[in-house]
Amino acid sequence: VNSPGAEIRQRGRPRDADIDARVLTAARELLAEAGFAGATIQAIAQRAGVQPPAIYRRWANRVQLVEECVFPGLSEVAVLPTGDLEADLRRFIAAYREALAQPHAMAALPALVAAYQATPDARMRPERGFRSARPQFRAILEAAPAGQVDAALDPEDLFDLLLGAVLCRTFILSVGVRAGAPDRTVELLLRAMRPS
Amino acid sequence: VNSPGAEIRQRGRPRDADIDARVLTAARELLAEAGFAGATIQAIAQRAGVQPPAIYRRWANRVQLVEECVFPGLSEVAVLPTGDLEADLRRFIAAYREALAQPHAMAALPALVAAYQATPDARMRPERGFRSARPQFRAILEAAPAGQVDAALDPEDLFDLLLGAVLCRTFILSVGVRAGAPDRTVELLLRAMRPS
Repeated sequence: VNSPGAEIRQRGRPRDADIDARVLTAARELLAEAGFAGATIQAIAQRAGVQPPAIYRRWANRVQLVEECVFPGLSEVAVLPTGDLEADLRRFIAAYREALAQPHAMAALPALVAAYQATPDARMRPERGFRSARPQFRAILEAAPAGQVDAALDPEDLFDLLLGAVLCRTFILSVGVRAGAPDRTVELLLRAMRPS
Repeated sequence: VNSPGAEIRQRGRPRDADIDARVLTAARELLAEAGFAGATIQAIAQRAGVQPPAIYRRWANRVQLVEECVFPGLSEVAVLPTGDLEADLRRFIAAYREALAQPHAMAALPALVAAYQATPDARMRPERGFRSARPQFRAILEAAPAGQVDAALDPEDLFDLLLGAVLCRTFILSVGVRAGAPDRTVELLLRAMRPS
Protein backbone atom coordinates (compact mmCIF):
# COMPACT_ATOMS: atom_id res chain seq x y z
CA VAL A 1 0.00 0.00 0.00
CA ASN A 2 2.85 2.35 0.79
CA SER A 3 4.76 1.90 -2.46
CA PRO A 4 4.47 4.86 -4.85
CA GLY A 5 2.87 2.67 -7.50
CA ALA A 6 0.09 1.60 -5.17
CA GLU A 7 -0.50 5.19 -4.16
CA ILE A 8 -0.84 6.38 -7.75
CA ARG A 9 -3.32 3.63 -8.55
CA GLN A 10 -5.46 4.72 -5.62
CA ARG A 11 -5.81 8.37 -6.71
CA GLY A 12 -9.36 9.58 -6.48
CA ARG A 13 -10.47 6.71 -4.28
CA PRO A 14 -11.82 7.25 -0.74
CA ARG A 15 -8.44 6.04 0.61
CA ASP A 16 -6.91 9.39 -0.50
CA ALA A 17 -9.05 11.49 1.79
CA ASP A 18 -8.09 9.16 4.60
CA ILE A 19 -4.38 9.71 3.89
CA ASP A 20 -4.93 13.49 3.79
CA ALA A 21 -6.59 13.41 7.17
CA ARG A 22 -3.94 11.18 8.72
CA VAL A 23 -1.12 13.36 7.40
CA LEU A 24 -2.78 16.57 8.62
CA THR A 25 -3.45 15.05 12.05
CA ALA A 26 0.14 13.82 12.33
CA ALA A 27 1.48 17.20 11.22
CA ARG A 28 -0.68 19.09 13.77
CA GLU A 29 0.44 16.74 16.55
CA LEU A 30 4.12 17.10 15.65
CA LEU A 31 3.85 20.90 15.37
CA ALA A 32 2.34 20.99 18.85
CA GLU A 33 4.85 18.55 20.33
CA ALA A 34 8.09 19.41 18.55
CA GLY A 35 7.50 22.76 16.84
CA PHE A 36 8.01 23.59 13.18
CA ALA A 37 11.59 22.32 13.35
CA GLY A 38 10.40 18.91 14.49
CA ALA A 39 7.54 18.63 12.02
CA THR A 40 9.62 17.38 9.11
CA ILE A 41 8.07 15.54 6.18
CA GLN A 42 9.96 12.43 7.31
CA ALA A 43 8.59 12.62 10.86
CA ILE A 44 5.06 13.40 9.65
CA ALA A 45 5.16 10.50 7.18
CA GLN A 46 6.37 8.12 9.87
CA ARG A 47 3.65 9.12 12.32
CA ALA A 48 0.93 9.04 9.68
CA GLY A 49 2.09 5.62 8.47
CA VAL A 50 2.69 6.73 4.88
CA GLN A 51 5.78 7.14 2.71
CA PRO A 52 7.12 10.68 2.09
CA PRO A 53 6.24 10.51 -1.64
CA ALA A 54 2.59 10.15 -0.66
CA ILE A 55 2.88 13.51 1.10
CA TYR A 56 4.75 15.20 -1.74
CA ARG A 57 2.07 14.13 -4.20
CA ARG A 58 -0.46 16.12 -2.14
CA TRP A 59 1.62 19.12 -0.96
CA ALA A 60 4.49 20.63 -2.95
CA ASN A 61 6.51 21.28 0.20
CA ARG A 62 6.39 21.41 3.98
CA VAL A 63 5.25 25.03 4.07
CA GLN A 64 2.14 24.23 2.04
CA LEU A 65 1.32 21.28 4.28
CA VAL A 66 1.73 23.40 7.42
CA GLU A 67 -0.44 26.13 5.90
CA GLU A 68 -3.22 23.59 5.47
CA CYS A 69 -2.77 22.56 9.11
CA VAL A 70 -3.28 26.13 10.32
CA PHE A 71 -5.36 28.36 8.09
CA PRO A 72 -8.62 26.44 7.75
CA GLY A 73 -8.86 26.54 11.55
CA LEU A 74 -8.53 30.32 11.53
CA SER A 75 -11.18 30.75 8.87
CA GLU A 76 -13.62 28.67 10.91
CA VAL A 77 -13.88 31.50 13.44
CA ALA A 78 -17.64 31.81 13.09
CA VAL A 79 -19.36 34.41 15.24
CA LEU A 80 -22.86 35.20 14.10
CA PRO A 81 -23.77 38.86 14.62
CA THR A 82 -26.45 39.58 17.19
CA GLY A 83 -26.66 43.35 16.67
CA ASP A 84 -24.88 44.03 19.98
CA LEU A 85 -21.68 45.46 18.50
CA GLU A 86 -19.60 45.39 21.68
CA ALA A 87 -20.60 41.85 22.62
CA ASP A 88 -20.11 40.62 19.05
CA LEU A 89 -16.63 42.13 18.81
CA ARG A 90 -15.70 40.63 22.14
CA ARG A 91 -16.85 37.17 21.03
CA PHE A 92 -15.15 37.56 17.65
CA ILE A 93 -11.80 38.51 19.20
CA ALA A 94 -12.05 35.71 21.76
CA ALA A 95 -12.79 33.14 19.06
CA TYR A 96 -9.98 34.44 16.85
CA ARG A 97 -7.49 34.34 19.72
CA GLU A 98 -8.61 30.85 20.67
CA ALA A 99 -8.02 29.64 17.10
CA LEU A 100 -4.56 31.26 17.07
CA ALA A 101 -3.70 29.81 20.46
CA GLN A 102 -4.08 26.19 19.32
CA PRO A 103 -0.63 24.70 20.04
CA HIS A 104 -0.06 23.70 16.42
CA ALA A 105 -1.01 27.17 15.18
CA MET A 106 1.15 28.92 17.80
CA ALA A 107 4.13 26.81 16.71
CA ALA A 108 3.51 27.17 13.00
CA LEU A 109 2.65 30.84 12.42
CA PRO A 110 5.97 32.52 13.31
CA ALA A 111 7.81 29.79 11.38
CA LEU A 112 5.54 30.37 8.36
CA VAL A 113 6.16 34.12 8.43
CA ALA A 114 9.90 33.38 8.67
CA ALA A 115 9.62 31.02 5.69
CA TYR A 116 7.81 33.71 3.69
CA GLN A 117 10.57 36.17 4.53
CA ALA A 118 13.13 33.71 3.20
CA THR A 119 11.19 33.15 -0.04
CA PRO A 120 9.49 36.42 -0.98
CA ASP A 121 7.48 34.84 -3.80
CA ALA A 122 5.56 32.92 -1.20
CA ARG A 123 4.66 35.89 0.95
CA MET A 124 1.09 36.21 -0.26
CA ARG A 125 0.12 32.79 1.04
CA PRO A 126 -0.80 33.51 4.66
CA GLU A 127 -3.46 35.86 3.37
CA ARG A 128 -5.62 32.93 2.38
CA GLY A 129 -6.26 32.40 6.05
CA PHE A 130 -6.07 35.91 7.42
CA ARG A 131 -8.51 37.15 4.85
CA SER A 132 -11.06 34.50 5.45
CA ALA A 133 -12.40 35.93 8.72
CA ARG A 134 -12.99 39.34 7.12
CA PRO A 135 -16.52 38.59 5.82
CA GLN A 136 -17.58 37.59 9.35
CA PHE A 137 -16.14 40.82 10.72
CA ARG A 138 -17.99 42.85 8.08
CA ALA A 139 -21.23 41.07 8.97
CA ILE A 140 -20.79 42.13 12.61
CA LEU A 141 -20.33 45.77 11.61
CA GLU A 142 -23.34 45.62 9.28
CA ALA A 143 -25.55 44.25 12.03
CA ALA A 144 -24.67 47.10 14.42
CA PRO A 145 -27.38 49.67 15.25
CA ALA A 146 -27.21 52.94 13.31
CA GLY A 147 -24.84 55.51 14.79
CA GLN A 148 -22.27 53.06 16.14
CA VAL A 149 -20.07 52.56 13.06
CA ASP A 150 -19.01 55.48 10.88
CA ALA A 151 -20.11 54.54 7.35
CA ALA A 152 -17.15 56.51 5.95
CA LEU A 153 -14.66 54.02 7.40
CA ASP A 154 -13.38 51.04 5.42
CA PRO A 155 -14.16 47.83 7.36
CA GLU A 156 -10.92 46.38 5.96
CA ASP A 157 -8.91 49.04 7.81
CA LEU A 158 -10.75 48.28 11.03
CA PHE A 159 -10.12 44.57 10.56
CA ASP A 160 -6.40 45.25 10.00
CA LEU A 161 -6.31 47.09 13.32
CA LEU A 162 -8.07 44.20 15.06
CA LEU A 163 -5.78 41.63 13.42
CA GLY A 164 -2.68 43.53 14.52
CA ALA A 165 -3.95 43.78 18.08
CA VAL A 166 -4.85 40.08 18.23
CA LEU A 167 -1.59 38.85 16.69
CA CYS A 168 0.43 41.12 18.93
CA ARG A 169 -1.36 39.97 22.06
CA THR A 170 -0.94 36.34 21.03
CA PHE A 171 2.72 36.36 20.06
CA ILE A 172 4.28 39.12 22.17
CA LEU A 173 3.98 37.98 25.72
CA SER A 174 4.28 41.20 27.72
CA VAL A 175 1.50 42.72 25.63
CA GLY A 176 -0.65 39.65 25.99
CA VAL A 177 -0.46 39.20 29.72
CA ARG A 178 -1.53 42.70 30.78
CA ALA A 179 -4.79 42.41 32.67
CA GLY A 180 -8.00 43.18 30.84
CA ALA A 181 -6.24 43.63 27.51
CA PRO A 182 -8.91 42.07 25.26
CA ASP A 183 -11.59 44.28 26.80
CA ARG A 184 -9.51 47.36 26.12
CA THR A 185 -8.91 46.28 22.54
CA VAL A 186 -12.67 46.17 22.08
CA GLU A 187 -13.06 49.58 23.73
CA LEU A 188 -10.43 51.18 21.50
CA LEU A 189 -11.94 49.62 18.38
CA LEU A 190 -15.39 50.90 19.33
CA ARG A 191 -13.96 54.39 19.85
CA ALA A 192 -12.20 54.27 16.47
CA MET A 193 -15.43 53.19 14.75
CA ARG A 194 -17.71 55.81 16.26
CA PRO A 195 -19.10 58.45 13.87
CA SER A 196 -17.37 61.83 14.29
CA VAL B 1 45.10 36.43 18.30
CA ASN B 2 42.30 34.08 17.46
CA SER B 3 43.18 31.37 19.94
CA PRO B 4 40.85 31.22 22.98
CA GLY B 5 43.79 31.91 25.31
CA ALA B 6 44.69 35.10 23.47
CA GLU B 7 41.06 36.18 23.55
CA ILE B 8 40.74 35.67 27.29
CA ARG B 9 43.89 37.63 27.98
CA GLN B 10 42.46 40.53 25.99
CA ARG B 11 39.24 40.80 28.02
CA GLY B 12 38.51 44.38 29.01
CA ARG B 13 40.94 45.85 26.49
CA PRO B 14 39.80 48.11 23.62
CA ARG B 15 40.15 45.17 21.24
CA ASP B 16 36.97 43.66 22.79
CA ALA B 17 34.70 46.47 21.60
CA ASP B 18 36.18 46.10 18.16
CA ILE B 19 35.35 42.39 18.11
CA ASP B 20 31.81 43.13 19.29
CA ALA B 21 31.31 45.59 16.46
CA ARG B 22 32.79 43.26 13.84
CA VAL B 23 30.64 40.36 14.99
CA LEU B 24 27.47 42.48 15.01
CA THR B 25 28.23 43.88 11.55
CA ALA B 26 28.92 40.40 10.18
CA ALA B 27 25.72 39.06 11.75
CA ARG B 28 23.60 41.88 10.29
CA GLU B 29 25.10 41.34 6.84
CA LEU B 30 24.48 37.60 6.96
CA LEU B 31 20.92 38.04 8.22
CA ALA B 32 20.23 40.38 5.31
CA GLU B 33 21.94 38.17 2.73
CA ALA B 34 21.13 34.67 3.90
CA GLY B 35 18.33 35.00 6.45
CA PHE B 36 18.29 33.65 9.99
CA ALA B 37 19.05 30.15 8.70
CA GLY B 38 22.24 31.38 7.04
CA ALA B 39 23.41 33.49 9.97
CA THR B 40 25.00 30.65 11.93
CA ILE B 41 27.64 31.31 14.57
CA GLN B 42 30.15 29.55 12.32
CA ALA B 43 29.37 31.78 9.33
CA ILE B 44 29.31 34.94 11.46
CA ALA B 45 32.65 34.05 13.04
CA GLN B 46 34.20 33.40 9.67
CA ARG B 47 33.03 36.70 8.21
CA ALA B 48 34.04 38.67 11.31
CA GLY B 49 37.46 37.00 11.34
CA VAL B 50 37.11 35.60 14.86
CA GLN B 51 36.84 32.12 16.29
CA PRO B 52 33.40 30.87 17.45
CA PRO B 53 34.52 30.78 21.13
CA ALA B 54 35.10 34.54 20.94
CA ILE B 55 31.41 34.91 20.06
CA TYR B 56 30.19 32.51 22.73
CA ARG B 57 32.10 34.42 25.39
CA ARG B 58 30.02 37.50 24.51
CA TRP B 59 26.62 35.99 23.69
CA ALA B 60 25.25 32.82 25.28
CA ASN B 61 23.66 31.71 22.00
CA ARG B 62 22.69 32.76 18.49
CA VAL B 63 19.31 34.11 19.57
CA GLN B 64 20.92 36.56 22.00
CA LEU B 65 23.37 37.72 19.33
CA VAL B 66 20.57 38.24 16.81
CA GLU B 67 18.55 40.15 19.42
CA GLU B 68 21.43 42.56 19.81
CA CYS B 69 21.55 42.97 16.02
CA VAL B 70 17.90 43.98 15.89
CA PHE B 71 16.52 45.59 19.03
CA PRO B 72 18.85 48.55 19.60
CA GLY B 73 17.91 49.74 16.09
CA LEU B 74 14.23 49.67 17.00
CA SER B 75 14.74 51.58 20.21
CA GLU B 76 16.59 54.32 18.32
CA VAL B 77 13.30 55.40 16.72
CA ALA B 78 13.54 58.95 18.00
CA VAL B 79 10.73 61.29 17.03
CA LEU B 80 10.66 64.43 19.12
CA PRO B 81 7.13 65.67 19.74
CA THR B 82 6.19 68.97 18.10
CA GLY B 83 2.71 69.27 19.60
CA ASP B 84 1.05 68.44 16.25
CA LEU B 85 -0.37 65.06 17.26
CA GLU B 86 -1.32 63.84 13.78
CA ALA B 87 2.04 64.82 12.24
CA ASP B 88 3.98 63.38 15.18
CA LEU B 89 2.13 60.06 14.98
CA ARG B 90 2.71 59.90 11.23
CA ARG B 91 6.44 60.49 11.69
CA PHE B 92 6.63 58.03 14.58
CA ILE B 93 4.94 55.27 12.58
CA ALA B 94 7.11 55.98 9.52
CA ALA B 95 10.30 55.84 11.60
CA TYR B 96 9.21 52.66 13.34
CA ARG B 97 8.33 50.97 10.05
CA GLU B 98 11.63 52.05 8.52
CA ALA B 99 13.54 50.52 11.45
CA LEU B 100 11.56 47.27 11.11
CA ALA B 101 12.08 47.20 7.36
CA GLN B 102 15.89 47.03 7.60
CA PRO B 103 16.73 43.78 5.78
CA HIS B 104 18.45 42.25 8.80
CA ALA B 105 15.48 43.09 11.04
CA MET B 106 12.92 41.78 8.53
CA ALA B 107 14.87 38.51 8.36
CA ALA B 108 15.43 38.20 12.08
CA LEU B 109 12.12 39.11 13.73
CA PRO B 110 9.89 36.25 12.56
CA ALA B 111 12.72 33.82 13.28
CA LEU B 112 13.13 35.28 16.78
CA VAL B 113 9.41 34.94 17.51
CA ALA B 114 9.62 31.35 16.24
CA ALA B 115 12.58 30.72 18.53
CA TYR B 116 10.65 32.14 21.49
CA GLN B 117 7.75 29.82 20.68
CA ALA B 118 10.12 26.87 20.73
CA THR B 119 11.64 27.88 24.09
CA PRO B 120 8.87 29.50 26.16
CA ASP B 121 11.28 30.66 28.87
CA ALA B 122 12.83 33.02 26.35
CA ARG B 123 9.56 34.62 25.31
CA MET B 124 9.96 37.80 27.32
CA ARG B 125 13.09 38.86 25.51
CA PRO B 126 11.71 40.67 22.46
CA GLU B 127 10.06 43.07 24.85
CA ARG B 128 13.39 44.73 25.53
CA GLY B 129 13.17 46.15 22.05
CA PHE B 130 9.46 46.59 21.61
CA ARG B 131 9.14 48.39 24.90
CA SER B 132 11.90 50.84 24.28
CA ALA B 133 9.91 53.03 21.89
CA ARG B 134 7.09 53.41 24.43
CA PRO B 135 8.55 56.43 26.27
CA GLN B 136 8.82 58.30 22.96
CA PHE B 137 5.21 57.46 22.15
CA ARG B 138 4.06 58.69 25.56
CA ALA B 139 5.99 61.93 25.02
CA ILE B 140 4.09 62.49 21.78
CA LEU B 141 0.74 62.02 23.53
CA GLU B 142 1.77 64.31 26.38
CA ALA B 143 2.75 67.06 23.95
CA ALA B 144 -0.64 67.00 22.21
CA PRO B 145 -2.98 69.99 22.72
CA ALA B 146 -5.70 69.55 25.32
CA GLY B 147 -8.81 67.79 24.07
CA GLN B 148 -7.09 65.51 21.56
CA VAL B 149 -6.17 62.57 23.82
CA ASP B 150 -8.62 61.18 26.36
CA ALA B 151 -6.79 61.29 29.69
CA ALA B 152 -8.73 58.21 30.83
CA LEU B 153 -6.98 56.02 28.27
CA ASP B 154 -3.81 54.08 29.06
CA PRO B 155 -1.03 55.13 26.63
CA GLU B 156 0.27 51.54 26.81
CA ASP B 157 -2.97 50.26 25.29
CA LEU B 158 -2.75 52.81 22.50
CA PHE B 159 0.87 51.83 21.85
CA ASP B 160 -0.12 48.16 21.68
CA LEU B 161 -2.69 49.03 19.03
CA LEU B 162 -0.07 51.00 17.05
CA LEU B 163 2.50 48.20 17.42
CA GLY B 164 0.03 45.60 16.16
CA ALA B 165 -0.86 47.75 13.16
CA VAL B 166 2.79 48.41 12.28
CA LEU B 167 3.92 44.80 12.70
CA CYS B 168 0.95 43.57 10.69
CA ARG B 169 1.58 46.01 7.88
CA THR B 170 5.28 45.10 7.84
CA PHE B 171 5.03 41.34 7.93
CA ILE B 172 1.72 40.53 6.29
CA LEU B 173 2.03 41.60 2.73
CA SER B 174 -1.55 42.05 1.58
CA VAL B 175 -2.22 44.33 4.55
CA GLY B 176 0.94 46.31 3.93
CA VAL B 177 0.48 47.03 0.27
CA ARG B 178 -3.01 48.55 0.41
CA ALA B 179 -2.77 52.15 -0.70
CA GLY B 180 -2.70 54.83 1.97
CA ALA B 181 -2.61 52.32 4.79
CA PRO B 182 -0.25 54.22 7.13
CA ASP B 183 -2.39 57.35 6.85
CA ARG B 184 -5.47 55.37 7.78
CA THR B 185 -3.69 53.79 10.74
CA VAL B 186 -3.00 57.31 12.03
CA GLU B 187 -6.63 58.32 11.42
CA LEU B 188 -7.98 55.32 13.32
CA LEU B 189 -5.58 55.90 16.22
CA LEU B 190 -6.61 59.55 16.43
CA ARG B 191 -10.27 58.53 16.50
CA ALA B 192 -9.60 55.96 19.23
CA MET B 193 -7.76 58.58 21.32
CA ARG B 194 -10.35 61.34 21.10
CA PRO B 195 -12.16 62.21 24.31
CA SER B 196 -15.72 60.90 24.36
